[in-house]
Amino acid sequence: MATGRTHRPATRSRGIPEATVARLPLYLRALTALSERSVPTVSSEELAAAAGVNSAKLRKDFSYLGSYGTRGVGYDVEYLVYQISRELGLTQDWPVVIVGIGNLGAALANYGGFASRGFRVAALIDADPAMAGKPVAGIPVQHTDDLEKIIDDNGVSIGVIATPAGAAQQVCDRLVAAGVTSILNFAPTVLSVPDGVDVRKVDLSIELQILAFHEQRKAGEEAAGESAAVPLAPKDSGKGPDGDVPAVMPA
Amino acid sequence: MATGRTHRPATRSRGIPEATVARLPLYLRALTALSERSVPTVSSEELAAAAGVNSAKLRKDFSYLGSYGTRGVGYDVEYLVYQISRELGLTQDWPVVIVGIGNLGAALANYGGFASRGFRVAALIDADPAMAGKPVAGIPVQHTDDLEKIIDDNGVSIGVIATPAGAAQQVCDRLVAAGVTSILNFAPTVLSVPDGVDVRKVDLSIELQILAFHEQRKAGEEAAGESAAVPLAPKDSGKGPDGDVPAVMPA
Repeated sequence: MATGRTHRPATRSRGIPEATVARLPLYLRALTALSERSVPTVSSEELAAAAGVNSAKLRKDFSYLGSYGTRGVGYDVEYLVYQISRELGLTQDWPVVIVGIGNLGAALANYGGFASRGFRVAALIDADPAMAGKPVAGIPVQHTDDLEKIIDDNGVSIGVIATPAGAAQQVCDRLVAAGVTSILNFAPTVLSVPDGVDVRKVDLSIELQILAFHEQRKAGEEAAGESAAVPLAPKDSGKGPDGDVPAVMPA
Repeated sequence: MATGRTHRPATRSRGIPEATVARLPLYLRALTALSERSVPTVSSEELAAAAGVNSAKLRKDFSYLGSYGTRGVGYDVEYLVYQISRELGLTQDWPVVIVGIGNLGAALANYGGFASRGFRVAALIDADPAMAGKPVAGIPVQHTDDLEKIIDDNGVSIGVIATPAGAAQQVCDRLVAAGVTSILNFAPTVLSVPDGVDVRKVDLSIELQILAFHEQRKAGEEAAGESAAVPLAPKDSGKGPDGDVPAVMPA
C-alpha cells in the first residue's frame, strides 16, 4: 500500500536534481544511437548537440553521476550508457501492466522501445469482456476484475493507463490500492494520487509544438527572403490581445 | 522543396534559446491545466513546480517572451497561455498528415490533444491497399501512391511517421521531396534529412525511465527504513562494470 508512505522530497533524490533526472533519458537516447553506430567516444559538445542540451549543462549533469570524461578524448559511449542506465534503474527488470487495450494500449504493448530499456510488459488489462483472452503483442488480455490479483502475482510497481479519460481515475485508484507506486498516464485527464505515488502524464503533442515553433520561424525567414519589406515577425491568426503591447502582465 | 534551403542556425531562433523553446510546451501544459480549473493567476514558483522546472529558469525563459509577471500577483494564466501559444505558432492552423495507420497511427489520429493545440489531421496515409477508403477517426485512409498529391492539396508542412522502422526513411524522403519541412518520427529508427528539415523523434519510454528512477529510490528508502544495516544504494542486477570504481572515464 502506498497511501501510508512518508512524502518524498519532490526536487532531489540522492543529490541529483529533478531536471537532471529528466535529461538522463535524452542523453541515453543519443548515446544509444551512437552505440548502434559503434562510435566509441563522444565529446560533450557532440553529445549535447545530439541530445538538444547546452554542453555546459551536460557536463554539470554528468558531474552528478561522477562522470567527467577525458580531456581530448571525451566520454566513453558504452560506459556512459551503462552508467546512466544504472542511475535510472534500467539495469533491473521492471514489470509493467498496461490498462486499456484500445489502439494506444495495443501500440504500447507492441512498442519495442520498452523491452530494450528494462520494461517488461507483464500483463494487459481491459474492461471489455470481449477482449479477455485475446492476444495482443503475444500477450492474452485479462479482464479488469482481476486487476488486483495481476498486480500482486507479477510484483508490478509501474502501471500504464491508456484508458479513455472517464475511466482513468478509477483505474488509477485501483492500481494504487493494489500497490502500484508509479503511474504513466496517457489518458487526457489529470489524476489525483496519494503522497508517495509518482504520476507522469504523456502529452503526444509536445514534440509537435516544438516543430510548429520552427515551422513558424522558417515561414518568417522565407517571407523575409522573398521581400525585404516583409517583417520577420511570425504569422499570427490575430486571435487574442494585440501581440505588440508591452508584455508586462495586465493582471 | 526543402533541399535547397540555407541551413538555419540550430541553437537560436529570433533570440530564444532552443532549450527554452523545448520548455515552452511544458509551461503550456501546466498553464492549460490551471486554466481548466479557472485559476486566474500563478506565481513563478507554483508554475515552475507544476512544469517540473527550476523557478529561476522559468523567469529567465519568460523574459525571452517579454513576460515578467506582477510582483505579489504573479502571472496572468490566460494571457500566458495566449503568449506561449503564439510564440510556438499554435494560434495558426497546422495541417498534418499521419503516415502508417497501424495501432499507433490510429491512436494518433484519435488523439484529442492535437486539435486543441492547432494541429489538424488533414489526411491519413497507409501503404496497405486494403486500408484505402476505410475511415479511422472519421477520416478515410488514403494510399501511399497519392502521398505527393495529398501534401500538395492540403498545404502540409508537418508529417507524422508511424510506419514500421523499415519503411520510415523512404516515407520520410517522399514527404520531404513533396515539401514537408518538419517530421515527427515515431518509428524506431534514425532518419536522415537534408538541411532545413527538422526531425523530432518520439521515445515513448522516456517518461517510464523517469518513473523507474523514482521507483528505484523508493525501493532504496523502504529497504533503509526496514533495516538500518541495508545500504541506501540502488538495487542493481550486477550487469556491467563495478559501479563503485571511480567514474573518471577509462577510455
